[in-house]
Amino acid sequence: GVLPLCNRSQAWGRATRQPPGLLAQHRAFSNNKILVELDESSGVATMKFKSPPVNSLSLDFLTEFCISLEKLENDRACRGVIFTSAVPKIFSSGLDITEMCGKSTEHYAEFWRAVQEMWLQLYSSNMVTVAAVNANSLLPSPCQGSSPAGGCLIALSCDYRIMAENPKFSIGLNEAQLGIVAPFWFKDTFVNVVGHRVAERSLQLGSLHSAPEAHRIGLVDELVPEEKLKDKAAAVMAQWLALPDHARQLTKTMMRKAVLDRLVAHREEDIQNFISFISKESIQKSLRMYMEMLKKKK
Amino acid sequence: GVLPLCNRSQAWGRATRQPPGLLAQHRAFSNNKILVELDESSGVATMKFKSPPVNSLSLDFLTEFCISLEKLENDRACRGVIFTSAVPKIFSSGLDITEMCGKSTEHYAEFWRAVQEMWLQLYSSNMVTVAAVNANSLLPSPCQGSSPAGGCLIALSCDYRIMAENPKFSIGLNEAQLGIVAPFWFKDTFVNVVGHRVAERSLQLGSLHSAPEAHRIGLVDELVPEEKLKDKAAAVMAQWLALPDHARQLTKTMMRKAVLDRLVAHREEDIQNFISFISKESIQKSLRMYMEMLKKKK
Amino acid sequence: GVLPLCNRSQAWGRATRQPPGLLAQHRAFSNNKILVELDESSGVATMKFKSPPVNSLSLDFLTEFCISLEKLENDRACRGVIFTSAVPKIFSSGLDITEMCGKSTEHYAEFWRAVQEMWLQLYSSNMVTVAAVNANSLLPSPCQGSSPAGGCLIALSCDYRIMAENPKFSIGLNEAQLGIVAPFWFKDTFVNVVGHRVAERSLQLGSLHSAPEAHRIGLVDELVPEEKLKDKAAAVMAQWLALPDHARQLTKTMMRKAVLDRLVAHREEDIQNFISFISKESIQKSLRMYMEMLKKKK
Repeated sequence: GVLPLCNRSQAWGRATRQPPGLLAQHRAFSNNKILVELDESSGVATMKFKSPPVNSLSLDFLTEFCISLEKLENDRACRGVIFTSAVPKIFSSGLDITEMCGKSTEHYAEFWRAVQEMWLQLYSSNMVTVAAVNANSLLPSPCQGSSPAGGCLIALSCDYRIMAENPKFSIGLNEAQLGIVAPFWFKDTFVNVVGHRVAERSLQLGSLHSAPEAHRIGLVDELVPEEKLKDKAAAVMAQWLALPDHARQLTKTMMRKAVLDRLVAHREEDIQNFISFISKESIQKSLRMYMEMLKKKK
Repeated sequence: GVLPLCNRSQAWGRATRQPPGLLAQHRAFSNNKILVELDESSGVATMKFKSPPVNSLSLDFLTEFCISLEKLENDRACRGVIFTSAVPKIFSSGLDITEMCGKSTEHYAEFWRAVQEMWLQLYSSNMVTVAAVNANSLLPSPCQGSSPAGGCLIALSCDYRIMAENPKFSIGLNEAQLGIVAPFWFKDTFVNVVGHRVAERSLQLGSLHSAPEAHRIGLVDELVPEEKLKDKAAAVMAQWLALPDHARQLTKTMMRKAVLDRLVAHREEDIQNFISFISKESIQKSLRMYMEMLKKKK
Repeated sequence: GVLPLCNRSQAWGRATRQPPGLLAQHRAFSNNKILVELDESSGVATMKFKSPPVNSLSLDFLTEFCISLEKLENDRACRGVIFTSAVPKIFSSGLDITEMCGKSTEHYAEFWRAVQEMWLQLYSSNMVTVAAVNANSLLPSPCQGSSPAGGCLIALSCDYRIMAENPKFSIGLNEAQLGIVAPFWFKDTFVNVVGHRVAERSLQLGSLHSAPEAHRIGLVDELVPEEKLKDKAAAVMAQWLALPDHARQLTKTMMRKAVLDRLVAHREEDIQNFISFISKESIQKSLRMYMEMLKKKK
């Protein structure tokens, strides 16, 4: 089984579905970095990333993400989740490089386990998951060092991806540009979406794809004007929720099980690989140079 | 090996190829639900589904399909088969839901084994197989409950798919809309044709794709005006038969073996899964509701 | 591990990178069939096939290919290789059929091991590999019997494929047209590039795709006017070399390892399969007929 990062006792109790109208239709709860809104009439929650300046996937962010997602997963009032950003012009700048640079082995292990957990929960979610992507590789200043790859992974793990059709926005798994290697389960998820050839080329080049290109290669399913992103996400969600949950969930599991099982079977090994790779002086140097370069862009 | 549904002793003896002109060039034989015509000069047979109103894949239909296909497989005069419909406006409405509703466990087992057998024979056929698809999801009345998925599976299992370019016609694996789940080997066959991403989305939504969309996603290889379907199928068949049989057959086996072996290895387990799933009261209720809905459309 | 065809003691010693300007920037070395030019300032080598009339992949050619590639692989001054032809109008006519026809079992084994070795070295190369393809299936006269498939395999095994946009040029794995079957690792490499469906159809038909079609199905990445092929290859190479080598190499290995491992695990079995298949009288006859047909085209 999947080893949970988030202790399940932290999760909310299972909600009982209430007759509409008796209770407030919207419940909102916010912690530090993610705002969650649940519309009980539609059964659709929105998880809004609000960790300025660039929604970096820090250890704190990932922990909150997992706790929030698990709460929704266990809430019978919730059938679908839309992921979007509450920070202007950025979806997520990706994994927080400061968590990978100059820290202890224990810290690297904890961080990587959190990244794994986020993906395991999201990719295996029984809920319908839609990404409303507003990603920009020209990171706004001031910005901490970060890689867009983690944000792309969140999008790739959803059931459907909508992106603002701004040609200045981009998305991709750019690890190779930082001198690091995407883990095999990032790769597997990517191949499942865009196929082997596109993934091979894109991963080797660490490509950040402009919105039109991302659409052309199938990395995102649809482009819409930025102001229509929210409505489009709601419409797509409604289409997916029109299906009976149980059959849809079993179908999703059938499609994704092989790739999920592969990480579950090699989880500790993957953490050790990450630690030994990231601890190399050459990699640490490469990450420091990347952060310096980003700082100069300010 | 593949466990045969159809006892091979039922099959015709192996025909000896006759010099052209000495015998009548066409042999036609008809049972109840499928009309088979073999043109010995070209080596091409046509299997025409004639089980009105909608060519449902009932147990009887499937049994006749397997016997007919095996006869052709063992007939040295036959090198290719075109699958089409003799019923106006419909290719096949798919698996006959009445076979899955309110019947005994033994009946479910027999029915599912027949569905498996049809696919195993067709997907592994040494002959060139071409589907000339005339599929319509707006089922004509009066119609029995049925799912287009089975008809789509027949098309997916062929070497080439041609479809009438009528935008009102549609095709797809729509199990999820009925609250049921496509078996893994439907999924494997679908992924081999359209790739993982398209299959994941289409199966979760139980999508019925219009002819133009089916062409765009690669579910069918070519669209032609309805009146040219027959000629086009013959032309495609001639192109494929221009190749030496033996190398083509070995190549086909190489491409399809992994997916075929997977069902052969898990055949009984797949039958048990089907029985336990279909026997659930919630699924039975869902199927009855779907049939009611279809009746109301009359 | 990979069993080397080319004895590693034959390879050059590891070169030490020299400061630019101290030595001549270009080193050229030529054996009989392949001209290798290394530009030490850019770190890019060009391997030019010069085995007239049609760059058949004979045993001698393959042996030289492997030795040359291994030299470059072990030369720290070299980071990328461009493969192209020094023979007008032809990239490579593919495997030399004369090596497969009327020879001893030992010869077949030696030849096939050389074909395997070429692919294992090229597909697993740590260098960036770019094919600048100028392939023509309308073989110029006088020509020996040959199949374009081998040339296509070289291109498929590179990181990027550029082709002259002449609609008369074509490329493909046409084994089926000769009555033979592409080995599973040709198939695996092809599927990794074009996907399962396109590969299944193309391999069964032994299709030779025109340049525009090859581009459309993803068999080549880009078409350019013939006179710009060289510049384009250099530009693409520069783009790929802008990435840090180590992360790019590990990423490439991650993408290709499963397919490489499969041949390594079944290498001797694959040789035996080739020998027993090619030794059949029916296959020998089929190859002789194909060669006769090519001679008549002169």
